Amino acid sequence: MKLGAIEAGGTKFVCAVSDDNINVEDREQFPTTTPEETMAQVFTYFEEHPVDAIGIGSFGPVSLNEDADNFGYITNTPKLAWKNYDFLGAMKAHFDIPFYFTTDVNVAAYGEYKAGAGRGKKNILYWTVGTGVGASYIQKGKFLQGYSHPEMGHILLRPDERDHGFEGVCPYHGNCFEGLAAGPAIEKRFGKKGYEIDPSDPFWEIEANYIAQACVNATLILRPDIIIFGGGVMKQTQLFPQIQAEFVKQLADYVDFPEITGYIKHVALGDDAGITGALMLAKKVVNEK
Amino acid sequence: MKLGAIEAGGTKFVCAVSDDNINVEDREQFPTTTPEETMAQVFTYFEEHPVDAIGIGSFGPVSLNEDADNFGYITNTPKLAWKNYDFLGAMKAHFDIPFYFTTDVNVAAYGEYKAGAGRGKKNILYWTVGTGVGASYIQKGKFLQGYSHPEMGHILLRPDERDHGFEGVCPYHGNCFEGLAAGPAIEKRFGKKGYEIDPSDPFWEIEANYIAQACVNATLILRPDIIIFGGGVMKQTQLFPQIQAEFVKQLADYVDFPEITGYIKHVALGDDAGITGALMLAKKVVNEK
Ligand SMILES: Nc1ncnc2c1ncn2[C@@H]1O[C@H](COP(=O)(O)OP(=O)(O)O)[C@@H](O)[C@H]1O
Ligand SMILES: Nc1ncnc2c1ncn2[C@@H]1O[C@H](COP(=O)(O)OP(=O)(O)O)[C@@H](O)[C@H]1O
Ligand SMILES: [Zn+2]
Ligand SMILES: [Zn+2]
Repeated sequence: MKLGAIEAGGTKFVCAVSDDNINVEDREQFPTTTPEETMAQVFTYFEEHPVDAIGIGSFGPVSLNEDADNFGYITNTPKLAWKNYDFLGAMKAHFDIPFYFTTDVNVAAYGEYKAGAGRGKKNILYWTVGTGVGASYIQKGKFLQGYSHPEMGHILLRPDERDHGFEGVCPYHGNCFEGLAAGPAIEKRFGKKGYEIDPSDPFWEIEANYIAQACVNATLILRPDIIIFGGGVMKQTQLFPQIQAEFVKQLADYVDFPEITGYIKHVALGDDAGITGALMLAKKVVNEK
Repeated sequence: MKLGAIEAGGTKFVCAVSDDNINVEDREQFPTTTPEETMAQVFTYFEEHPVDAIGIGSFGPVSLNEDADNFGYITNTPKLAWKNYDFLGAMKAHFDIPFYFTTDVNVAAYGEYKAGAGRGKKNILYWTVGTGVGASYIQKGKFLQGYSHPEMGHILLRPDERDHGFEGVCPYHGNCFEGLAAGPAIEKRFGKKGYEIDPSDPFWEIEANYIAQACVNATLILRPDIIIFGGGVMKQTQLFPQIQAEFVKQLADYVDFPEITGYIKHVALGDDAGITGALMLAKKVVNEK
């Protein structure tokens, strides 16, 4: 059996093929331009590398409501060429195989769940803090999904007093989690990129406060077995002990949680999480047929 | 078939019996004193009213982890006589029938889900704002449950500027949701009970802000189909339009949600929700045998 994966990001698409043990046999990437151009490359890729199922993780917003007419579409993205693009429909028109269609964040979370930092846990919360803040919750193998999929990156947090005067950069909410803590918010404060700021800079304590608040609220609402962080900003690994300490202080022993250093953790798969997860979801969809 | 229900509250216990259409045929209540005294009354009640299964909603904290040794216990409650009391074990020692054991908040949520404001919805979030703030999330018929059950009442919110100087009353967190918005927090601010404050008092706008923040964060994290509010404080029904307006403003159209007046709603069953839900859970446990 051959499995396929598409990681469809806002700047690049990655396509890959593996055997049924998720050993990647081929991988290719191309820039995200227009659907005509980029999707033509996807179709050619899988014509040249035939597979039995494909897992797709797409940039969004996407429609994941199976009852809706636009299931599998990229909906109202600022990337206008892709707005209301029927991604899953286009794939189905070219390949008569099963697909698993979800968000880019969900495929990465699934990779970490099955083969990364979340391996062996039942319920995982995955956050990515990069250009934006994305999140995914997997409960006993299934993505949390209600009226639509979660968008936890925009939860409202308490401004840190030491951050007084910073209004946040989210065009919707100003100082929501993403507006305060994602890469562009850091850049706005300093006029330079996060990786140019010294790891000992006191700013990282403020960043840790925001991330810890998100962990406290998600812990009280979801009670995950583990919280896993990836994304560019989390490459600042000095943040982990800071977040853990701040989380313990803020939660104030109100509820139990697993041992802290095993509870709030960095991703284990790095940039491979998305492709790994997409391949695993392709496998799942074949097995469930 | 006869179904039984126990609503075990911190001040009173209610026992009830119904037929399999949840028509309540008998109901009795007694004060919550010590396990010896109160539970003796429970045993007598169900000896006199034999049933085929019992649904139990208990005050907490309770252990709901089926893998844990203390599953079905009331754990570290401030009501010392009940601390580490094996509630479910005591019931099982007296009656050889199936039980469904969960929190008092979960049974009320289940009642609203099956027969109240949540009827016909797939995923409901239920909040009670009374002496404390409790919450329950039901996803396609199942309570959300991870490492343990949610404790959403203590999520961290942004203090409202108009509420400046009020530190909150939660012994753990000060100004968490419960510490800012439950009955005792209102009483602390005014020196009188919530029901003695005029419904046109500007304070209710502040209360609505906190409740709306909780709805925004829970919407982004869970994506429920409906959010249902009960509890003493929510008898201030002027709060509903205020919360709805504040929610729309804070969420700022970032994600879709159902039509607002059908999305944030008052309970439909009132004080009957708990017993109704416990009976429905007794029925569920019989049907799943
Ligand atoms: N080592 C680093 N420390 C702090 N911030 C970083 C680091 N590396 C990347 N970033 C920031 O993370 C963001 C990019 O996030 P990333 O997860 O790599 O991509 P994306 O979110 O676009 O998929 C940028 O804002 C960048 O400045
Ligand atoms: N009509 C009302 N308006 C505002 N607050 C109220 C009202 N009725 C009760 N309360 C407050 O609600 C709290 C009791 O909540 P309730 O849900 O009735 O019980 P409990 O939470 O103890 O089970 C008390 O703090 C009380 O002051
Ligand atoms: Zn935002
Ligand atoms: Zn609290």
